[in-house]
Amino acid sequence: MPQSPIRKLVPYAEMAYKQGKTVYHLNIGQPDIKTPEIALDAVKVHSLDILAYTRSEGSDEYRNKIANYYSQHDIHVSKDNIIVTTGGSEALLFAFGSVMDTDDEIIIPEPFYANYNGFSTASGVNIVPVISKIEDNFALPPIEEFEKLITPKTKAILICNPGNPTGYLYSKEEIKKLASIVKKHDLFLISDEVYREFAYDGVQHYSIMQEEDIAEHAIMIDSVSKRYSMCGARIGCLVSKNKAVIATALKFAQARLSPPTLAQIASEAALQTPQSYFDGVIEEYVARRNTLINELEKIEGVKVAKPKGAFYCIVELPVKNSDDFAQWLLESFDVNGETVMVAPAAGFYSTPGVGLNQIRIAYVLNQDSLKKAVNILKEALKVYKD
Amino acid sequence: MPQSPIRKLVPYAEMAYKQGKTVYHLNIGQPDIKTPEIALDAVKVHSLDILAYTRSEGSDEYRNKIANYYSQHDIHVSKDNIIVTTGGSEALLFAFGSVMDTDDEIIIPEPFYANYNGFSTASGVNIVPVISKIEDNFALPPIEEFEKLITPKTKAILICNPGNPTGYLYSKEEIKKLASIVKKHDLFLISDEVYREFAYDGVQHYSIMQEEDIAEHAIMIDSVSKRYSMCGARIGCLVSKNKAVIATALKFAQARLSPPTLAQIASEAALQTPQSYFDGVIEEYVARRNTLINELEKIEGVKVAKPKGAFYCIVELPVKNSDDFAQWLLESFDVNGETVMVAPAAGFYSTPGVGLNQIRIAYVLNQDSLKKAVNILKEALKVYKD
Repeated sequence: MPQSPIRKLVPYAEMAYKQGKTVYHLNIGQPDIKTPEIALDAVKVHSLDILAYTRSEGSDEYRNKIANYYSQHDIHVSKDNIIVTTGGSEALLFAFGSVMDTDDEIIIPEPFYANYNGFSTASGVNIVPVISKIEDNFALPPIEEFEKLITPKTKAILICNPGNPTGYLYSKEEIKKLASIVKKHDLFLISDEVYREFAYDGVQHYSIMQEEDIAEHAIMIDSVSKRYSMCGARIGCLVSKNKAVIATALKFAQARLSPPTLAQIASEAALQTPQSYFDGVIEEYVARRNTLINELEKIEGVKVAKPKGAFYCIVELPVKNSDDFAQWLLESFDVNGETVMVAPAAGFYSTPGVGLNQIRIAYVLNQDSLKKAVNILKEALKVYKD
Repeated sequence: MPQSPIRKLVPYAEMAYKQGKTVYHLNIGQPDIKTPEIALDAVKVHSLDILAYTRSEGSDEYRNKIANYYSQHDIHVSKDNIIVTTGGSEALLFAFGSVMDTDDEIIIPEPFYANYNGFSTASGVNIVPVISKIEDNFALPPIEEFEKLITPKTKAILICNPGNPTGYLYSKEEIKKLASIVKKHDLFLISDEVYREFAYDGVQHYSIMQEEDIAEHAIMIDSVSKRYSMCGARIGCLVSKNKAVIATALKFAQARLSPPTLAQIASEAALQTPQSYFDGVIEEYVARRNTLINELEKIEGVKVAKPKGAFYCIVELPVKNSDDFAQWLLESFDVNGETVMVAPAAGFYSTPGVGLNQIRIAYVLNQDSLKKAVNILKEALKVYKD
């Protein structure tokens, strides 16, 4: 099993704490945004006397409500197209297991969410990366680049939209290009859309499920984790109109019996979250992003891709190896007892040697903390020697 | 993905409901026993404002408390030997993934829990069955039978103790035999002990973790599902003193981020459940078992293995094919509008053609219902024609 790019830094972070340093965590995707009260309150008033299994695919009622939620986003599915999973993570595992056999290949634009490596290893399939570039803001690589990589073993293309770690939001045109290629080569298009609500600057998120033409090819991965700041619920879902995919995924779901019951109660209640909650959250993230980008752009030698969604961005630094730099920040640097933890970006690339001078920043801190954290980066780069 | 032996009966059960029949469910492992109030109340008074991830391996506090619970059962481990999982199901997946590669082999006494098929398929490993017999009450097969099956691809032996679907409780001597063989051939011994508390007739459960000699070989699978009647929590754990196993399993755990947070709150509280709760539960199950066995033994041509633990038993019927019989019970039979649903046992065997005349009964109904259900079976067998 491959390891996440952040894990090897954890001992150094613990060392920094022991030294009495304050550490600004720009490395993690655990938002500080409050969970909607309606969701947290729902479990407080539960009336269960047996904490029993639910249906393996999730309760009919919850799946109906999810379908209704999607219809408000111009995604037209029924409960029978939905399997409730234990987080988006399990939905990805089910998708991989349902459409691929051992040694099959899946094409993924890199940089990509590092845990895709773990899920592919667990499923015995191989990731074939296609590089997207910071110069292009991590837009979809030319479709010919995908086409070059397709072999008889290729079964699927996976995208994350908006992207972790890039913050890139695919346009309708880009989704249509992907749709045409999966149709042409009879592949599956798996789209991890767990950040759907986090689309900025008035741009509308366009889901692969809106491409009616690829209904048999499209598998959407979703989760309540980020949408409602409910990472600990561990509730996600797999959505597809392809009946064979759902039937196979259901067998995986049945083998693990049931998604967590208490968390389904919270997640069902969360669907009643008012729009004002999301408006407030988006406003906050846009302000954080703007602050972050503004501050980063003031640093000489730093290149940053302006994110259009999610709450991550990839930053290119004037260093040779951001792994070493990230470790040095924790081990040997501080500004008045404060330092930062960042995620070295090489771990988000599958191609060796790429992204060595990049880091991922998660803007999940308030603006004041972000300003302080970026200032620490700036001061650090003044004195850091490769 | 293979399918559970019960699933194909579900449409027939739904048909029976539509016909207005009452169906006694002897087919499922969802106990009707109440969850301890202390566990259900703990989530009612939670003080979370963000439903965040926990550590991937579960919180330190909860793992310390689990270790303390085990010490009361003469199992001496620390929090570092424990990874909290999303149900015993995920602990099995992590165990399979951590000790086996694609095409490796795992030896399992059959009949075995049908979902082991799903986990082995998901992990790309092959199950090699060794048959245990109803005539022997499903005791451990002669250890030479295991030895005959060991090849260079064999990496582990898996047992369920007490057994689902057999109800058999392995003796200390049987565990010692398994310990000696895994040591001799340098294999892992994975023991699914989720029914540990359900040991009857004053017999003490003996865990593989009590065999100090195989500390490096032993992996215990556990869960709160049955112990506290909390199947819907989806909290289990993997326990091993082998540091490499824990390190690898931890990578699987990190890839899926976190076990469910709310359910960990309930599970931690459940550890304070008083002994009187278990005493009451055990008394109830023993009474149910005795009623069930007494009633079954009155039926001519029926053979039953008396269970010593868990809440299942395998019953041999005077029929040729229990799949057909189980379907017929739902489709075409009733006593005053009532019928029963049972699990055909062939699905618990990996060897084709074995167990065709057996069913599994879960005695998770009260004694009155059990009596009525067995009476329906008796009347059905009088008229059923193969």
